[in-house]
Amino acid sequence: MHKLVLIRHGESTWNLENRFTGWTDVDLTPAGIEQAVQAGRLLKAEGYDFDAAYTSVLTRAIRTLHLALDEMDRLWLPTVKHWRLNERHYGALQGLNKAETAQKYGESQVMVWRRSYDTPPPALDAGDARGERADPRYAQLKPEEVPLTECLKDTVARVLPLWTESMAPAIQAGQRLVVAAHGNSIRALVKYLDGISDADIVGLNIPNGIPLVYELDASLQPIRRYYLGNAEAAAQAAAAVASQGKA
Amino acid sequence: MHKLVLIRHGESTWNLENRFTGWTDVDLTPAGIEQAVQAGRLLKAEGYDFDAAYTSVLTRAIRTLHLALDEMDRLWLPTVKHWRLNERHYGALQGLNKAETAQKYGESQVMVWRRSYDTPPPALDAGDARGERADPRYAQLKPEEVPLTECLKDTVARVLPLWTESMAPAIQAGQRLVVAAHGNSIRALVKYLDGISDADIVGLNIPNGIPLVYELDASLQPIRRYYLGNAEAAAQAAAAVASQGKA
Repeated sequence: MHKLVLIRHGESTWNLENRFTGWTDVDLTPAGIEQAVQAGRLLKAEGYDFDAAYTSVLTRAIRTLHLALDEMDRLWLPTVKHWRLNERHYGALQGLNKAETAQKYGESQVMVWRRSYDTPPPALDAGDARGERADPRYAQLKPEEVPLTECLKDTVARVLPLWTESMAPAIQAGQRLVVAAHGNSIRALVKYLDGISDADIVGLNIPNGIPLVYELDASLQPIRRYYLGNAEAAAQAAAAVASQGKA
Repeated sequence: MHKLVLIRHGESTWNLENRFTGWTDVDLTPAGIEQAVQAGRLLKAEGYDFDAAYTSVLTRAIRTLHLALDEMDRLWLPTVKHWRLNERHYGALQGLNKAETAQKYGESQVMVWRRSYDTPPPALDAGDARGERADPRYAQLKPEEVPLTECLKDTVARVLPLWTESMAPAIQAGQRLVVAAHGNSIRALVKYLDGISDADIVGLNIPNGIPLVYELDASLQPIRRYYLGNAEAAAQAAAAVASQGKA
């Protein structure tokens, strides 16, 4: 039996400001830092240990990982930082306030943009200063690999190659992995692992900073999945995520 | 022309306590944290940027790297954490106070252990609790790769394969590398790059937290090398390192 631990980064400054973040590289808030520290303490207290770590190339996820590993005395773990674990790209919504966007376009439109499986938000113009194509962390990618917007279906499509080519083989080789990533890159993995339908994934929310444990069989089929720590707190945190798009 | 930046970690708790550290995984002091932050600020202010980072598997070097990269908004850099960049193993001296050891064995004996190129300190017993063979970060190594003591010659021998097989090819492929490591793993690299003799390397000391820049030609021969920032401060810091073994 394999164990895989997924952690959404702690609260970010734009989570706090209720803004669409996507690939914008905002940092953690003090509360987000504390969530990451607590995640590490909880993992250590529950006896978890890891052989390798995965994270995105966005600071809020990397910092969450570092803070958690530091609590576990595991800063030395080999760590893959990969753009395929980045948050869903939010297109022209990046930087906009979620509630203001809901007032302007209506809650139902915002819910479609936030949670529809296959309807992306409006795309950034390729020349928009908010775009990432000039960012050196993506310099090795083909331009078409750097999105201008994404629906969750797009995010699933770019997350899964990393799972298939790197993470799944590592797990099957016996490595215990911890993944510090983002609401939607984790939803992409959860959708794949649990075989959740395109319709049902809309209602699934991932709380900040609470370790989500998957127990997987030899063929990486989930046996059990659960949040570590207080189940009620995890449910409340997930409900808070769900309500962010209300005007 | 290639640039390579080497940084010895900031002051550690055992630097401060004047104890032989070696592979013992002690952390930075508050002053060491500040040195690492300042190193990152200096690199950023001087216009340095990097494509990849290398560090050891010891917390004081990893934390130094993270703090410096954080100041440069480069936490996302691909980072190799490798045991070959660890500090020289100090054998049975690990944990002992340098001045007390000098009182007990004489300054000249301590100077031999500290700076002789090919005389290692007394070895740890394989079963000594201070040994690292049970440490999970070395679980993938052959037992004989985990030293029980090292002279600098031994350190050179285990650092250079990482240079030859990974760092040098990366530099020649155009990557700008930053290396956060240790007094003796950096001395090993400096000895090799500058062709310093076994006799002359004894007098070379690396200060904590001051970026050491190498300008290398196409065949990785050094054109120039210099510390960033205040040259006088770097010289004083190196002199302080040299005097640690006095009773």
